Amino acid sequence: MCLMNRWGREGHMPVLISPVVPERPTVSLVCSDPDFEHEDLNFLSRSERYEAAVKKSAQMILKMREYGVSDPEEIYCYKSSVHRGRSEPLDLHLGMFLPTLLNQATPEQQERFLMPAWNLEIIGTYAQTEIGHGTHLRGLETTATYDPATQEFVLNSPTVTSIKWWPGGLGKTANHAVVLAQLHTQGKCRGLHAFIVPIRSTSSHKPLPGVEVGDIGPKFGFDEVDNGYLKFANVRVPRGNMLMKYAQVEPDGTYQKAPSDKLTYGTMVFIRSMIVGDSARALSKASTIAIRYSAVRHQSELRPGEAEPQILDYQTQQQKLFPLLATAYAFQFVGQYMTQTYHRITGDINQGDYTELPELHALAAGLKAFTTWAANAGIEECRMACGGHGYSRCSSLPDIYVNFTPSCTYEGENTVMMLQTARWEGGMFSCHSPPPPGPEGILEQVYVVWRAFETRVEAIWSMASSVLADWTCLFLVCHHHQRTSHFVLLCSSLVALAAKNLQAQLQKGKRQEDAWNSTAVDLVRASDAHCHYVVVKLFSSKLEEVQDSEVHSVLATLALLYALHGISQRSGDFLQAGLLSVSQLPRVSQKLKELLARVRPNAVALVDAFDYRDEMLNSVLGRYDGNVYENMFEWARKSPLNRTEVSEQGPRKPDTLRLYTEGPRFKPHLLPSCL
Amino acid sequence: MCLMNRWGREGHMPVLISPVVPERPTVSLVCSDPDFEHEDLNFLSRSERYEAAVKKSAQMILKMREYGVSDPEEIYCYKSSVHRGRSEPLDLHLGMFLPTLLNQATPEQQERFLMPAWNLEIIGTYAQTEIGHGTHLRGLETTATYDPATQEFVLNSPTVTSIKWWPGGLGKTANHAVVLAQLHTQGKCRGLHAFIVPIRSTSSHKPLPGVEVGDIGPKFGFDEVDNGYLKFANVRVPRGNMLMKYAQVEPDGTYQKAPSDKLTYGTMVFIRSMIVGDSARALSKASTIAIRYSAVRHQSELRPGEAEPQILDYQTQQQKLFPLLATAYAFQFVGQYMTQTYHRITGDINQGDYTELPELHALAAGLKAFTTWAANAGIEECRMACGGHGYSRCSSLPDIYVNFTPSCTYEGENTVMMLQTARWEGGMFSCHSPPPPGPEGILEQVYVVWRAFETRVEAIWSMASSVLADWTCLFLVCHHHQRTSHFVLLCSSLVALAAKNLQAQLQKGKRQEDAWNSTAVDLVRASDAHCHYVVVKLFSSKLEEVQDSEVHSVLATLALLYALHGISQRSGDFLQAGLLSVSQLPRVSQKLKELLARVRPNAVALVDAFDYRDEMLNSVLGRYDGNVYENMFEWARKSPLNRTEVSEQGPRKPDTLRLYTEGPRFKPHLLPSCL
Repeated sequence: MCLMNRWGREGHMPVLISPVVPERPTVSLVCSDPDFEHEDLNFLSRSERYEAAVKKSAQMILKMREYGVSDPEEIYCYKSSVHRGRSEPLDLHLGMFLPTLLNQATPEQQERFLMPAWNLEIIGTYAQTEIGHGTHLRGLETTATYDPATQEFVLNSPTVTSIKWWPGGLGKTANHAVVLAQLHTQGKCRGLHAFIVPIRSTSSHKPLPGVEVGDIGPKFGFDEVDNGYLKFANVRVPRGNMLMKYAQVEPDGTYQKAPSDKLTYGTMVFIRSMIVGDSARALSKASTIAIRYSAVRHQSELRPGEAEPQILDYQTQQQKLFPLLATAYAFQFVGQYMTQTYHRITGDINQGDYTELPELHALAAGLKAFTTWAANAGIEECRMACGGHGYSRCSSLPDIYVNFTPSCTYEGENTVMMLQTARWEGGMFSCHSPPPPGPEGILEQVYVVWRAFETRVEAIWSMASSVLADWTCLFLVCHHHQRTSHFVLLCSSLVALAAKNLQAQLQKGKRQEDAWNSTAVDLVRASDAHCHYVVVKLFSSKLEEVQDSEVHSVLATLALLYALHGISQRSGDFLQAGLLSVSQLPRVSQKLKELLARVRPNAVALVDAFDYRDEMLNSVLGRYDGNVYENMFEWARKSPLNRTEVSEQGPRKPDTLRLYTEGPRFKPHLLPSCL
Repeated sequence: MCLMNRWGREGHMPVLISPVVPERPTVSLVCSDPDFEHEDLNFLSRSERYEAAVKKSAQMILKMREYGVSDPEEIYCYKSSVHRGRSEPLDLHLGMFLPTLLNQATPEQQERFLMPAWNLEIIGTYAQTEIGHGTHLRGLETTATYDPATQEFVLNSPTVTSIKWWPGGLGKTANHAVVLAQLHTQGKCRGLHAFIVPIRSTSSHKPLPGVEVGDIGPKFGFDEVDNGYLKFANVRVPRGNMLMKYAQVEPDGTYQKAPSDKLTYGTMVFIRSMIVGDSARALSKASTIAIRYSAVRHQSELRPGEAEPQILDYQTQQQKLFPLLATAYAFQFVGQYMTQTYHRITGDINQGDYTELPELHALAAGLKAFTTWAANAGIEECRMACGGHGYSRCSSLPDIYVNFTPSCTYEGENTVMMLQTARWEGGMFSCHSPPPPGPEGILEQVYVVWRAFETRVEAIWSMASSVLADWTCLFLVCHHHQRTSHFVLLCSSLVALAAKNLQAQLQKGKRQEDAWNSTAVDLVRASDAHCHYVVVKLFSSKLEEVQDSEVHSVLATLALLYALHGISQRSGDFLQAGLLSVSQLPRVSQKLKELLARVRPNAVALVDAFDYRDEMLNSVLGRYDGNVYENMFEWARKSPLNRTEVSEQGPRKPDTLRLYTEGPRFKPHLLPSCL
């Protein structure tokens, strides 16, 4: 049964697709290591999960030393294999504290902190967000006031809203934190700077005087992570604990500004690029589980009297899952592109050339939001497409969701990110320099956005023509080419309309900022269109690298599905922009349905190519061998509630039994007529 | 600060809106009862949550007896107050087991089972779903074979896929189950019937011989409920344990068919109507939390140098939350309508008149799916609109989501429900009688769907004209009236297209069922349009009942927001159907933005009118007094991880400490160049 399921349909041999992201040797190293075996985390309490994670992280550090794992990507892979892709208490130590030391500490500071940190004598975290302040960094309230008498900084949390909140590892694990605080020296506030602050004793691990620190309590997910709070009351650190590679405070309190404010862009861009990769991984895991299970699950009747079909044969199920499969592929390629581009540009940055940074920064912001939103909704769509069993923790889908969903918020809230991209696109408004209010300027800038919108469609059409020679696509493409000039005209009219709206707001006496706020919804929509275009383009270019003609054909189908599905999702926008005509819409729908049918036979092979081994997926529904039901039963039997035949506090135990049998009885006439 | 927040904007006095669903006296009875005080459930393990729920349910039954609570709606309200809206181990006993006895047991059976069940000597559940079978009831595999020699039914689970799976209360709580099984008698299978099966000893509570029963393990939510599995090996029950009010098996095994197969419709319709109400409650809770918190939270800058504004002032935040607020109101009214209609029709059903049942059945199916999908996505939108703090369990939003989301799956998987509505709409296909294949029949039926689509728009336009006298709406309405005939023409052309697609499939040699499957996506879309129309219509009729002109104006704004937002979400469909023109689209967007601004000053008053007291919301972010941050800090301090200053297994405890300090150290040259 299972092999037949794997091959999609009886008698059909799917295209053999080699792994998109081949498994690294590290994964099998970790999976075969008995030190990393663990009980099912779903059966543990949150405290137990935290403790298990700390133990594993300690083991992990030891082993990485032993094996000499030092390449950043290998470290990431090892860490992610040990923790099965989950976040863990040392995440911020490895991912933020150490890199911040490397990038922002002076050589002297590196000497003092880096090796102890690498050897875990210092365990650090990165304390930026406050309970009342998130994305808007200038709003942070924590203060670091320089006292030249003792050459110390005095850290304070002046208000409830200034309490540091959320940093991972802060609650129980870390003994040091890089703290972002408003620097005050010589009576002036110099803005945010980073300070290394010891928060717990390196011997007893107890909080140091003036430091109030703890765990922020249970969350939707991230059970393994002790996200924490941190409150300062006159905590003093030596002058040498401010990270001084760029900005400096001299012994007398004189402040030296950093040479460029773009320096922190690099880290942000890097992290956001990584998050794009996370989106791809999370969505590819979820779609692997949902598609394999949909090939195992049989349900209802398509034809009376015949056996129940695999639910993957239902068009509605295909419509839920295949566009997500296509999206998972698309995001894999976008993630690869972002990382490559980051590495390419990093070289330039190190040479002091920041030319490409603003564009990459804007793109990373938009794509971070675009991919996390899509993956976030997609994971839940996958879960619900698995019916009731998707709701069981044994599916792993709840776990994937709750651990992924914060990425829509952290490292830049998604809506704010979209507006950032829009700002760059238009170049209209920046934090520091409001734009010229003239209508021509605005028109020109908004036009840029709509140009991006237009080129997106061109990319889709050209792909459609190269892949599919049938009448629908030809029709669409021809129709397009005949109307190029109309496109431009229509775009211009839309741009004029948007500009007119803005102008109208300004003429009513609205301030520019308010006028901007009043068009925010449209700007987000424009950024979304821009990101969709970039993803389609990257998917399309990736196709050119594929040599095998059968694989090329399968991936091209996916790419077209991704593009056309995006059009159908935004069909109103496309019609409004004049890039589609109403008469073409039914053809788009029809083509989409044809593509679903074409993906069907290779769907399982396509998720197999993501190459997740069972230990990494950790999903009973997504098992490679398809033996779902037997293993679900086995898993359930191990559930904590089944450790005793009769529950400790349940019915028929003295306490509750008495309540049941000794209470006053209802008289029959009081029985509800209809419950 | 807080009062000002409540009033929306400084200096603005919002409209006073009386509670939409006024709190019942029962709620304050429960909330002031010290027996129902409890520790924060977020701090407990799953086993502890189950045990706490069992204790509370036992208390609850006692108190309901004591106070003589017997009205069904009072019982529901009491239960829901005790468990704060969460599901609990006795849900299926009260909501399915007892009603099934009332509706399907003979008077003799009622005498044997009903009073013991009401007095909790018998604790029951309803075992229908199997591990391999859900929505498609005919696929269930559990067998009940009649043995005339002993006058017993022999129950068996012949396969792994036939194991009963999911019933609430089955895992640890229940000692009896109503079991749905395929009845075999005199060598023939007679289809599904219900049997009362004892599964645990009423004295020791241990599983009876031949019964394997247990908890199915942790889930996304429903931590308080012991959803269970149940496997039979030759379990015998007396003939009198088959529920025989309708169908019967005589002592010799002769089978008497039930007079109508529509009898079970009633319960399904009732439950689905209740779920529509659940959608309204869940979404109104989530939007209360998100909107209140958005009035408390200040973030970023709108105008340089000015104080950070309430995030509710951002257009993007309004666009996320206000359509959901409008939806929550709309669903409240739909829920009320469904319950009223059900009660009205129930009278007819009891008289043997089933005329209106099929329509209500179809409508309940569609609206169950439509409202649960919308509420499900809406709750998550609310959570994410609260930024990071929405992710904390103290917001209550994760809890609302995980406890609500199963309603998209249970009592009829949503996509299947939508197709059921489409089946009724078209009357084309039914389970038992495939439709006539002629193109006229199909055309006519599909046309019904599109008529519904059209009338939806008419309802919106008429509302727009009655509420808003400004040029946009007038334009839209006039434009509409001029084009009525065009609407019909365009509808017809769409119908013709759909019919043509179906015909084309049939002519290619596809079977009818396959052709149906190939248009399933379009049919779901049609059902969605139909449901949207019904909701708009009911909201619109509700307005007529509102006397106070100020309140009428506020609610009319919400209704129009709901309607127009629905149009903008489906603008492609509307354009394709010719019910909107491309040139009207920018006006719809503009009108939507105006409506957001108009809702803003009354937003907090509108959620206050849902009338949830803090104990019921149980959300630090959604507190009535707005003192979010202080209480968040207090809540976090009580978190289990903070019970000790230094974690038991964390860093600096002997075990892990040794790993950190005694392991081999890294050599500096192995330090990653870029982490």
